[in-house]
Amino acid sequence: MPERVFDLVVIGAGPAGQKGAVQAAKLRKSAAIIEREEHPGGICLYTGTLPSKTLRETATFYQAFRKRALQGMRGLSCAMDRTVTFSDLIHRKEEVILNERQIVSSQLQRNDIQVIRGSARFVGPHEVEIIEPDGTSGRLRAGHFLIATGSSPDHRSLPVQIAPPVYDSDSILRIDRIPRTMTILGGGVIGCEYACVFAALGTKVTLIDRRKTLLRFMDEEISAALAFHMREMGTALKLGEEIEAIDPAGADRVTTRLKSGKQVQTECLLSALGRRPATDGLNLDQIGVAVDPHGQITVDAAYRTSVAHIAAAGDVIGFPTLASTSMDQGRLAVCHLFDYPAKAYNHLLPYGVYTIPEISVVGRTEQELTEAAVPYETGLARFREIARGQIIGETEGFLKLIFHQRTRALLGVHVIGEGATELVHIGQAVIAHNGAIDYFVDSVFNYPTLAEAYKVAALNGLNKLL
Amino acid sequence: MPERVFDLVVIGAGPAGQKGAVQAAKLRKSAAIIEREEHPGGICLYTGTLPSKTLRETATFYQAFRKRALQGMRGLSCAMDRTVTFSDLIHRKEEVILNERQIVSSQLQRNDIQVIRGSARFVGPHEVEIIEPDGTSGRLRAGHFLIATGSSPDHRSLPVQIAPPVYDSDSILRIDRIPRTMTILGGGVIGCEYACVFAALGTKVTLIDRRKTLLRFMDEEISAALAFHMREMGTALKLGEEIEAIDPAGADRVTTRLKSGKQVQTECLLSALGRRPATDGLNLDQIGVAVDPHGQITVDAAYRTSVAHIAAAGDVIGFPTLASTSMDQGRLAVCHLFDYPAKAYNHLLPYGVYTIPEISVVGRTEQELTEAAVPYETGLARFREIARGQIIGETEGFLKLIFHQRTRALLGVHVIGEGATELVHIGQAVIAHNGAIDYFVDSVFNYPTLAEAYKVAALNGLNKLL
Repeated sequence: MPERVFDLVVIGAGPAGQKGAVQAAKLRKSAAIIEREEHPGGICLYTGTLPSKTLRETATFYQAFRKRALQGMRGLSCAMDRTVTFSDLIHRKEEVILNERQIVSSQLQRNDIQVIRGSARFVGPHEVEIIEPDGTSGRLRAGHFLIATGSSPDHRSLPVQIAPPVYDSDSILRIDRIPRTMTILGGGVIGCEYACVFAALGTKVTLIDRRKTLLRFMDEEISAALAFHMREMGTALKLGEEIEAIDPAGADRVTTRLKSGKQVQTECLLSALGRRPATDGLNLDQIGVAVDPHGQITVDAAYRTSVAHIAAAGDVIGFPTLASTSMDQGRLAVCHLFDYPAKAYNHLLPYGVYTIPEISVVGRTEQELTEAAVPYETGLARFREIARGQIIGETEGFLKLIFHQRTRALLGVHVIGEGATELVHIGQAVIAHNGAIDYFVDSVFNYPTLAEAYKVAALNGLNKLL
Repeated sequence: MPERVFDLVVIGAGPAGQKGAVQAAKLRKSAAIIEREEHPGGICLYTGTLPSKTLRETATFYQAFRKRALQGMRGLSCAMDRTVTFSDLIHRKEEVILNERQIVSSQLQRNDIQVIRGSARFVGPHEVEIIEPDGTSGRLRAGHFLIATGSSPDHRSLPVQIAPPVYDSDSILRIDRIPRTMTILGGGVIGCEYACVFAALGTKVTLIDRRKTLLRFMDEEISAALAFHMREMGTALKLGEEIEAIDPAGADRVTTRLKSGKQVQTECLLSALGRRPATDGLNLDQIGVAVDPHGQITVDAAYRTSVAHIAAAGDVIGFPTLASTSMDQGRLAVCHLFDYPAKAYNHLLPYGVYTIPEISVVGRTEQELTEAAVPYETGLARFREIARGQIIGETEGFLKLIFHQRTRALLGVHVIGEGATELVHIGQAVIAHNGAIDYFVDSVFNYPTLAEAYKVAALNGLNKLL
């Protein structure tokens, strides 16, 4: 591989890397992406977001069916084959992945982005060495770099090796059948999402976290509602518990001992104790790219690292580590690298958690506003008050609007329930345009839709003002 | 019943009447609603919107299941009981109706609205006579009136009586089992919605209309896509055909003869040839309330009839005859009657059609803008290009944005596909706040969601400008 020079070299072809490279191409810059795996896409495509959401779709569909059947949808019956293998259930992900991979590859190709397979390490501030899978190596030079190497499961606090019956979020989708019982360590996004998916498939889940609440960055009312629903689905939440030891016994038994003296024995265990930025081997210290104590690359508001011509985006810079935000960070990072003006609604990143029921929030939380001494009021609508909620049997979800007590400006939207990740975008558009909650009162919504919850919540909120 | 005087008397307790009465109460006016049926709610609740949407939910669920199963969701099986009765399938509507009725009744009660059962007729410009079911009569006087008497199926052009095997939209939900074959007359909203629901339940449907296109008020691209999908579901569309005669034979055979010489024989026939405003017996001519040749009460922009203290809203004033718009009309009509300032996004009424796939539009159509000589461009996103579309197997839907070629202001949103009636509200919020399509490019959307179609469509549209 001869040495070549690009305007931008991106390391990592996940959501952040892809969108960064495409943005460079749109600015008429030459760009290359270095990717260790055979195909671009990142964990988002192969072990993370997309496969887990495809499995979730099967699980929710199955659960929704059982729920509707129970609620009186007579004449239809649904059954899960007792001999069903796990790969049967996630079979569809192959097709989804293949399709997404084609979309990604063709987008990179259309934009003349060179995709180079191999592992990269910096050998100078403007040069990386690439070790290809066959062992050959080469070098690339570039005016600018975007580090988007993602993350990998963090096992540092796990007192056991990852090997069946112990899994992490990269290996869990390779299990062979639906376990009857499962222990999940960690009440963050990944732990909660998998707990809900397996519970919906019929697994008896025990979720353990040393914190007292699930999804600690979330609005308290939403987080409490999630805990309630998870328990209703049969999941045992052991919160505020520290792990003493984990003892696997054969391929399908593992005992988790807690410092409080309790023992939990299940067929398998999923460790979801967080993910760690994947910066090993990049030689960051040699070129002076600063990394914080958590291993996250330090960046400024423009996603520049401590070395001005090197940016970083995605999981490698830490929270919120979502595919959606990573894409945006990649795009913005590259705009800033080339001094191209870019508009960002940074305060308006929606956050979606694909638990069952799903959760989505945008804007501020009550806790934040209280700390900032902004006088607010809230308006709430329960889906069961809305015709569409009745029709689909969605009786548990709710939508909470937070708005300024004087100006009535919409400040935050918090939703839990079916369609939450879609619904939140309505409120996001209103916040982005500095709208007030009066908009929802004055507007007509399709009937029957869940979106009507905005109107009901706005009326509820305004009534509190009077 | 002693004679009593109210600030407002509303005739008809459907969506328009309810919201009108509640609005009056909020303005601290005394209000009464006269309703012919036993409970408030109107056809929306008992034979129209809500029951048909509940049945649609069962049908789409069943269809979605078959579709997903075909697309490789292994391990789950779903079956419809061969002996299932139709009432089994719509069983749930009873619960939904009961719940909605309670919500409506308690809202009327909370607002001190007098609900009076009986048929009303004007005996003077400020007085109505009410005949109660037991034959007793009484009179009510009021400073203002809102006529919200709704509509009933229009049989004037139907050359046969409504009796099994011939049904109209009020009687169709009383059939005893799912017919194997069905003829539907009319390619408007009701005809198309029922054609899709029955096709999803396995009925072989033939839809006949004398017009060449379905849903003629709709964007042409959307209407053509609907026709395509209905045919794919096995529905035969006989468009541009006139009916010669309809010959029922016994309880489960009916032959429809067309002027073109064709014959269609099915187990039953549903007439969906439009609805007629229900103004008979109101004595409108006597008090000078003008009615147009279609029987619709003529109103101005403030929903006032030709008699200034009498307003009308809902189906009785004609298009669009949707529950959502009727509610808004009722509310606005009453605000105007009492000279209370009311904000209305009249140009921004979303329109939802619960076909399968469902359709929703807001704002302007290409046809309208071409006529108005507004230079526009369009951006399109197909759901199959979007991860969420892949995950749920929604490969047919699309979202079309229409925006101003120079200002880039969003002018219209047209969606067909799963979740269309919810998704349209995102675009509606942007149009209402005079936003441009750049908003979608600059915003982060939850991943994976169908809402990402807005971003893809906006990028597609902007690329056309360059």
